[in-house]
Amino acid sequence: HAPNALVLTVAKGETARTATPLRAVTLTCAPTPGGTHPAPEAACAELRAVDGRFSALRGDQDRACIKIYDPLVVTAEGVWEGQRVRYERTFGNSCTLQTEAGPVFSF
Amino acid sequence: HAPNALVLTVAKGETARTATPLRAVTLTCAPTPGGTHPAPEAACAELRAVDGRFSALRGDQDRACIKIYDPLVVTAEGVWEGQRVRYERTFGNSCTLQTEAGPVFSF
Repeated sequence: HAPNALVLTVAKGETARTATPLRAVTLTCAPTPGGTHPAPEAACAELRAVDGRFSALRGDQDRACIKIYDPLVVTAEGVWEGQRVRYERTFGNSCTLQTEAGPVFSF
Repeated sequence: HAPNALVLTVAKGETARTATPLRAVTLTCAPTPGGTHPAPEAACAELRAVDGRFSALRGDQDRACIKIYDPLVVTAEGVWEGQRVRYERTFGNSCTLQTEAGPVFSF
């Protein structure tokens, strides 16, 4: 199988460069789901559904979130099916992080 | 413990941006050594000895290498003791990679 190894982080703040990581997990999806991510199977299923394109991830769109600005920035780095991954996205607060990014960044 | 999750890659070529990863592994060193790295204990011991400063890693300096230029580029990304890591280094060939970088990039 092609190389497959990711590290995901969540930090409090607007950009990865300036925000100190609160949490960081490893995630591997081949040959089998694993890593320190609390739900590798669910996370790998989500990533396979979007062919590893983190920007295409969607969460539970129906859930409403209160409009408090307390930003969290997530990153994904490493290799997915042999291709390098470098992804960063900022969410208004932890609720929008959950509803928009789903299981992959639930840790 | 502070967040600790790394992904290490080895690719054939001069820069990570242009070289396709040959191999990629995850490595966690806290609370216990683990990941898809083949020798997490040895790798974590080396990293602890240099406080996670990849640039300070040294391998088996006594071993001589033939001077063939067949470059390999290694990367380390993620979080070490709560601090973000982003490291890249190119080696002349696989022998110098072994002798200069040691167990951390032996996978």
